[in-house]
Amino acid sequence: MRLVTGFHAIEETLKALENEKPAAKIAGISIQYAKPGPRVKKILATATKLSIPATEKAVKEIDFLVQVLPPTARDHRGIVLLMENAEQEAPLQLDECLKAFKDKEKALVLILDSITDPQNVGAIIRSADQFGVDLVILPEHRSATDFEVIARTSSGAASWVKIVLTPNLVRAAELLKKEGFWIYGADAGGENVALTSFADKTVLIMGSEGSGMARLLREKCDKILSIPTQGKLDSLNVSVAAGILLYETRRA
Amino acid sequence: MRLVTGFHAIEETLKALENEKPAAKIAGISIQYAKPGPRVKKILATATKLSIPATEKAVKEIDFLVQVLPPTARDHRGIVLLMENAEQEAPLQLDECLKAFKDKEKALVLILDSITDPQNVGAIIRSADQFGVDLVILPEHRSATDFEVIARTSSGAASWVKIVLTPNLVRAAELLKKEGFWIYGADAGGENVALTSFADKTVLIMGSEGSGMARLLREKCDKILSIPTQGKLDSLNVSVAAGILLYETRRA
Repeated sequence: MRLVTGFHAIEETLKALENEKPAAKIAGISIQYAKPGPRVKKILATATKLSIPATEKAVKEIDFLVQVLPPTARDHRGIVLLMENAEQEAPLQLDECLKAFKDKEKALVLILDSITDPQNVGAIIRSADQFGVDLVILPEHRSATDFEVIARTSSGAASWVKIVLTPNLVRAAELLKKEGFWIYGADAGGENVALTSFADKTVLIMGSEGSGMARLLREKCDKILSIPTQGKLDSLNVSVAAGILLYETRRA
Repeated sequence: MRLVTGFHAIEETLKALENEKPAAKIAGISIQYAKPGPRVKKILATATKLSIPATEKAVKEIDFLVQVLPPTARDHRGIVLLMENAEQEAPLQLDECLKAFKDKEKALVLILDSITDPQNVGAIIRSADQFGVDLVILPEHRSATDFEVIARTSSGAASWVKIVLTPNLVRAAELLKKEGFWIYGADAGGENVALTSFADKTVLIMGSEGSGMARLLREKCDKILSIPTQGKLDSLNVSVAAGILLYETRRA
């Protein structure tokens, strides 16, 4: 089961359900709420329209429910969305995703190498949704609580952006290369991204803020890209940098 | 007094001191540390080079010190930077900043309208540094703990990006207009930012994620700008959107 807290994350999740079926087929969605204010009432109206059951509870019961979440996701403001079958979903497999790319002329894949802050991962997944990324690849060693924060900080986007977890990012990059993808890595000292023309099949790799891309992964890159800046710090926040690079893949 | 925690924020603050005098003249900087690991030792070496005094303390003493910080900034990892005179600094005045723009042919000002999440404000100030923003204007009603988080999430950039707090953003926009600035507001349904040419004196206004710009502030805008996207959500994270727009002011 997955819990979603935060007005914005719940609203966006419902909006996505209203518009189209999310990538991860989610059944058994329900809502628990306490003492509804105007914003909760608006959410409940949307839920009714979608035939999502909502139950009134004591504040204490909701407090208890969200104890499974990490501290930053526990501020429930009187409403929580429950996705009962979310964890029973079979995880996406890299091989099958790659097969789907065979018939496509264009595709955009994002690899996140050891970006540890789930707030940043959430913001990046939100950008991936906005800029039409076909697949996000993350390393496998993430904890369940990470995903609760990612669900929240991505404002629900993590529910329908295709995400694959893999034990070996270097191997994933190799497989993508075999499928005709060009690999672009973000790092200092690279080509100015504003002047780059991207291949029809593009992989973008973002490394962590502290240490950048792992060396073996960097060696798989066909081109290193940089964002020209002039500040006193050495880099942008990684989610901002990812947003600018994804924006550029679409502007070009 | 201001406390800075987080390896990255401390490293960046020291790096800025090494390279040039920060915008806010900071005297009385010191470090307290406990049980130094390799990264703390590296920071201490830089501090010695800059003649910044460092004192070894018990972990408990540092735990006690950081209690004044908000929970998200208390994870000190054994080192904290103290800026003793930071709060005695006279705050920048809008009038004086505007005077400085009279002699300049080009200037870039960023107004943040009711962006409440200090993590987002911090990431935006970091981008402001990277893209050479001359002045950031925030509404006055921020708490001191907000600024502790902003100092950390901006990786120290808040110490040298020029920031003005004002009780009235609409009045600030009017004053900037009188100085020959063009005002660009970020919102849905505006002109594609990739096709916009920015004025030499540009003000960019970012509204909050939930409710956007206040109506009266929106009415001051000469142009509304949008980032073309295709996702299922209604918007990017506000710090990502601000980063893309600032990037575009410099790319153009």
